[in-house]
Amino acid sequence: MAGKEKPVILVTNDDGITAPGLHALVEAVKDLGDITVVAPDSPQSGMGHAITVHNPLRLDPVDVHGDHMWYQCSGTPVDCVKIAIDKILRRKPDLCVSGINHGSNSSINVIYSGTMSAAMEGAIEGIPSVGFSLLNYSLEANFTASKTIAHKITSNILRHGLPQGTLLNVNIPDLSLMDIRGIKICRQAMAKWVEEFDERLDPNKRKYYWLTGKFINQDKGEDTDEWALANGFVSVVPVQFDFTAHHAIPFLNELNYELDTQDS
Amino acid sequence: MAGKEKPVILVTNDDGITAPGLHALVEAVKDLGDITVVAPDSPQSGMGHAITVHNPLRLDPVDVHGDHMWYQCSGTPVDCVKIAIDKILRRKPDLCVSGINHGSNSSINVIYSGTMSAAMEGAIEGIPSVGFSLLNYSLEANFTASKTIAHKITSNILRHGLPQGTLLNVNIPDLSLMDIRGIKICRQAMAKWVEEFDERLDPNKRKYYWLTGKFINQDKGEDTDEWALANGFVSVVPVQFDFTAHHAIPFLNELNYELDTQDS
Repeated sequence: MAGKEKPVILVTNDDGITAPGLHALVEAVKDLGDITVVAPDSPQSGMGHAITVHNPLRLDPVDVHGDHMWYQCSGTPVDCVKIAIDKILRRKPDLCVSGINHGSNSSINVIYSGTMSAAMEGAIEGIPSVGFSLLNYSLEANFTASKTIAHKITSNILRHGLPQGTLLNVNIPDLSLMDIRGIKICRQAMAKWVEEFDERLDPNKRKYYWLTGKFINQDKGEDTDEWALANGFVSVVPVQFDFTAHHAIPFLNELNYELDTQDS
Repeated sequence: MAGKEKPVILVTNDDGITAPGLHALVEAVKDLGDITVVAPDSPQSGMGHAITVHNPLRLDPVDVHGDHMWYQCSGTPVDCVKIAIDKILRRKPDLCVSGINHGSNSSINVIYSGTMSAAMEGAIEGIPSVGFSLLNYSLEANFTASKTIAHKITSNILRHGLPQGTLLNVNIPDLSLMDIRGIKICRQAMAKWVEEFDERLDPNKRKYYWLTGKFINQDKGEDTDEWALANGFVSVVPVQFDFTAHHAIPFLNELNYELDTQDS
């Protein structure tokens, strides 16, 4: 951050501007800097890294508590970060925090998560960024412990920064602070969803489907986020947006790619 | 693939069931196995790894050429892969191909791309998967060279497989096959978009915004996809869905995460 100026902190989420988790996150970090909130005007769970290219966006100030800058945007979480930087913030923020998500974004969920994609977009823009999720899907979830943890982790980031090209995926078990065993740096567990689409008939007897599924953790490692959460720890996974599988390059270089131009 | 049975090949895209690139991809791979197409019923560019959790999905067979299995789905590209596996295919496919996208998905675009997210979903399901993109956004793009390249690369995958947990991001310069200098294995260039939201007024004098931006390549490496494409090569980047920034773990382990339970 520049000199003694207060840090500029951008807050967003994917559950939308009215979600209790967003308000909890603002409370958690409001003493650390100047807060600007730009969040979707409706829930955007499962939006991944979607951006809005075929529709215009709306952006409107919202009077929430009188003392902060709150905006709602008609786009995705990633749109919120992009438009905040281009149209709202007076300079590049010192921190981008996303969440607190109502529900887990551990292991493979990082890929589907709008919460994490917003944080990833912040990191792509060169802003130290972190997404927070509480392992409780309820609107009535208790964010007391989450606020303490979010404050601790964001303070650390403001003080020490993050390695270039990385952001943090923080998942918090649904426990009181007394029962949380600590904060653990982890890797993403290798897990997946096994889909079971629920098939139904509409009133006109046409089929439709609801996406449901079972989460399967195939990874027994004790250095994973799934292990940490199952054992009462907060999981912190450093995440990168270089998706290159560098280890696969030698294998691929062994194969033959000669093109027969006669094929054209 | 099992015994002498023909490979089962799932084809999808993000430009939708009517896109010429999808039909070009089917033509490119149809002699390699039994083809099933499950594609969005409308364009889904920029959808990233979005999934549909708050709305039901429709899935309908489409009679395209009479000789293949074609379905359109009301969801995202990732939804298409999930529902194909759960509801349509008789067994796990041997290959999932996505595209051919009308426009580049090189470097950071892999993150925003529905084409690549569909391929990534295939890879998460344990299916060798690849996304193809042609560097031409036009509906009238010429896919002749792309078809030859897609055939070469998918044949290689069917013969040799892919390292576990990886998929391929293939981008093809908009050149004739004669002018393409070859196929190059690359890493993802570190690049980003600088957003410039185009602000307009609607007929009621309310503001709205269109997402536009400039692509900035900050990476001068000659082992990147951007370098390959700028120099007339097809770029092949192996991509992984383990997003862990493993190199950042030692740095993070040095920090203090002790929680003061009095804070609660």
